[in-house]
Amino acid sequence: MSSNYVDDSKVLHTDLYQINMAESYWADGIHNKKSVFELFFRSLPFGNGYAIFAGLERILDYLRNFQFSESDIAYLKEELSYSDDFLAYLKDLRFTGDVYSMVEGELVFANEPIIRVEAPLAEAQLVETALLNIVNYQTLIATKASRIKQVAKDEAVMEFGTRRAQEMDAALWGARATFIGGVEATSNVRAGKQFGIPVAGTHAHSLVQAYKSEYEAFHAYAKRHKDCVFLVDTYNTLKIGVPTAIRVAKELGDKINFIGIRLDSGDIAFLSKEARRMLDEAGFHDAQIVVSNDLDEYTILNLKAQGAKVDVWGIGTKLITAYDQPALGAVYKIVSIENEEGVMEDTIKISSSAEKVTTPGQKNVYRIINRENGMAEGDYITMHDEDPASEERLKMFHPVHTFISKFVTNFEAKNLHVQVVKSGEIIYENPTIQEIQKYATESLDLLWDEYKRSLNPEEYPVDLSQKCWDNKMRHIQDVQEMVEEYINKER
Amino acid sequence: MSSNYVDDSKVLHTDLYQINMAESYWADGIHNKKSVFELFFRSLPFGNGYAIFAGLERILDYLRNFQFSESDIAYLKEELSYSDDFLAYLKDLRFTGDVYSMVEGELVFANEPIIRVEAPLAEAQLVETALLNIVNYQTLIATKASRIKQVAKDEAVMEFGTRRAQEMDAALWGARATFIGGVEATSNVRAGKQFGIPVAGTHAHSLVQAYKSEYEAFHAYAKRHKDCVFLVDTYNTLKIGVPTAIRVAKELGDKINFIGIRLDSGDIAFLSKEARRMLDEAGFHDAQIVVSNDLDEYTILNLKAQGAKVDVWGIGTKLITAYDQPALGAVYKIVSIENEEGVMEDTIKISSSAEKVTTPGQKNVYRIINRENGMAEGDYITMHDEDPASEERLKMFHPVHTFISKFVTNFEAKNLHVQVVKSGEIIYENPTIQEIQKYATESLDLLWDEYKRSLNPEEYPVDLSQKCWDNKMRHIQDVQEMVEEYINKER
Repeated sequence: MSSNYVDDSKVLHTDLYQINMAESYWADGIHNKKSVFELFFRSLPFGNGYAIFAGLERILDYLRNFQFSESDIAYLKEELSYSDDFLAYLKDLRFTGDVYSMVEGELVFANEPIIRVEAPLAEAQLVETALLNIVNYQTLIATKASRIKQVAKDEAVMEFGTRRAQEMDAALWGARATFIGGVEATSNVRAGKQFGIPVAGTHAHSLVQAYKSEYEAFHAYAKRHKDCVFLVDTYNTLKIGVPTAIRVAKELGDKINFIGIRLDSGDIAFLSKEARRMLDEAGFHDAQIVVSNDLDEYTILNLKAQGAKVDVWGIGTKLITAYDQPALGAVYKIVSIENEEGVMEDTIKISSSAEKVTTPGQKNVYRIINRENGMAEGDYITMHDEDPASEERLKMFHPVHTFISKFVTNFEAKNLHVQVVKSGEIIYENPTIQEIQKYATESLDLLWDEYKRSLNPEEYPVDLSQKCWDNKMRHIQDVQEMVEEYINKER
Repeated sequence: MSSNYVDDSKVLHTDLYQINMAESYWADGIHNKKSVFELFFRSLPFGNGYAIFAGLERILDYLRNFQFSESDIAYLKEELSYSDDFLAYLKDLRFTGDVYSMVEGELVFANEPIIRVEAPLAEAQLVETALLNIVNYQTLIATKASRIKQVAKDEAVMEFGTRRAQEMDAALWGARATFIGGVEATSNVRAGKQFGIPVAGTHAHSLVQAYKSEYEAFHAYAKRHKDCVFLVDTYNTLKIGVPTAIRVAKELGDKINFIGIRLDSGDIAFLSKEARRMLDEAGFHDAQIVVSNDLDEYTILNLKAQGAKVDVWGIGTKLITAYDQPALGAVYKIVSIENEEGVMEDTIKISSSAEKVTTPGQKNVYRIINRENGMAEGDYITMHDEDPASEERLKMFHPVHTFISKFVTNFEAKNLHVQVVKSGEIIYENPTIQEIQKYATESLDLLWDEYKRSLNPEEYPVDLSQKCWDNKMRHIQDVQEMVEEYINKER
């Protein structure tokens, strides 16, 4: 946006309570206590077997520019009545912590820390909302794109959703996320410019209407554009649209590169088969059929089952908004904090919903890869000081049904966290978007197909180390004892 | 975003095909033909009986800054190979058209033009995508907020969704849209600063965890904050959380303003009733119960039916993403274009889907208000040169089931379009956000309750004038004749 303030910053892009809590910490002098927060989600979106992490590039940009502007401070003072001494602290505040993160394109599963922030308490608190906002959306969309690509397989998928995206950032960063998830191109030109994503698109119905006939409109388009995909459904797809496209392609011959036609309405299965037949009869065997009309992985699967003849899928609304589940529920929880003696102490949040109980302590996530077949055996979450790579034989057990377990030998343990920020300084260089997409594709190759099917995939193992599990149980017990004690005291 | 380009503009926030079409128009010398485009949606979201328009402020900002930057031009040249002559035209291009729009907060229904753009063809084409992107999201969210507010009634509703929003713009502009729809406050501080929306929030679980006990955490919070809402579900809501909040409130007495408590997990119906009882027994009859946990209009209705004792509803994910229908399908269609003689000619798009057939011609929308009871009789779409106010007796008939009709007399016909841009200059001054909210509320007062219920509302009449209907029928017939002629010629 062109803001009402020339010095607009993103630091106020947070929930009010974060600033209130920072003030309490600061007033009590505990704002610089070292703390560890972890960002994770509790369940995979769309019933999918995996998610693809995206959002790091924007997070690093946000952290790099983490600084209250003059107008931010003025607003907090004048409208929200924060005190001058606290505001003086905020004015000079920068992000000074360490951040460990998975890289973009990494496969990620439920309940594993995607990002670990180790920072002074108040700083770690203030960045929570923006980090979640970014990761939740971008990861959701990269995952949705990957699902669609799994179904489309070798046929190209184009992202056409800008007009239906949830405002501008979603269109822009969503286009980037879909590319990470495996989509071939976007229609959003700004995303092409910003991120180096291929852009695609030809013309709309309005071109045909501006020229009154498809014949004239296609000719007009072809005059300036070598690569031609003609939209054929403005008046009548099979009776006028396709015949006119063929006629214009024949008339122009080698003067254009007749890529094919686009269908945007009607019964895609029927129309695409008929159009294919007409194109083939006219000798245009290589002409492609591009379709776009409220598609997603389910409709693609159905259209394929019906024998639709489609070469390129243009996906809009359902992809850019993740229509069937438009939010990922990632959370950001404190897992450890410095005590009065300067020693780190783990912390837990108990809840009456079992899945909302956090796993205390600073942790690492390892992907365990079987050296014999090169496939992933599962992910293994450890306390920070453990090194699974040094073990001969790893016991992996289910974190809920602990009796389900297996032993793994001859494995590689890949630490999925990379340090991206050191004492506030960004030390990570973003790969190109093509490299990120390639990394995602290669990571998927390590997964058995059972984890990748779009309906009812097998559950990929994400297990806690024995030490991590014991630590969690001890903390749960401590809280239970604390509750008992409290109640007994009150009696 | 802090862009990779210092001169980032929003002009490339468009689909590639818009630029391709603009190039064809320009190459053919028809880019400056006067054209009329209308923006509308075909069906109301959420099965609601009305929508609330939002997005105009950002659209005007976008049009005001419509200018290709140097890096935009460089990208189009180097990466997309547009020709120098066309780029020279784009470089100097500004938006020079006229725009007529409903005002923000206006009630809007299916198939009525919300915005009418009258501009040189290429300009009108280039702005399509951004306009749709903005209107689709902001209108969707204002409408969702209004639905929730209809159910919450006199209880306050807070927007808490930033962390689950679809990227930053959605959080920011979404917060604004929810306020227009009737929500009382947002947690997003930047939205408070930018738009003057009240902000709300107190503290999270991490505060309690940072202090190890609720008792210490509540005291720490109260030390710096007069207004206190204590979050009581970190360890055990009824056994520790609520008793501790009461104890701290009693200890501090008049030193704080004990607003109440917040419940964020567990069974809200049961917990709120128990908490209410405990607060009342302790003498805190005015203490409020704030709840937040995956709520929307359906859960609010159910919780109320179960006698939940809630004073403030904090709504996150389901509101900011419009979870049950995360996209509005507004479209932008050409309805009239200058012919070779310089005369405006109406145009139509036919489709095999009947609801996708456009209504040709430059049109106005009137709200017909019955002077006797002050209530809206329906909306009435006319050709641009008609004046329903001059008529004694208006015949309103259903645009599909034309035999359903009524006559209205003694009415006021309010033109819902305001000219906001004149020859490229913004001539509309945005009201304050409070004024917009008030306008929306007052507009809802003109609607019978039957149109406002959240489930299966009555259909509000949106009718075409006889002239408008005749014009549409004539154009449909013309296209049918054109198709016939084409087919006969081919034989």
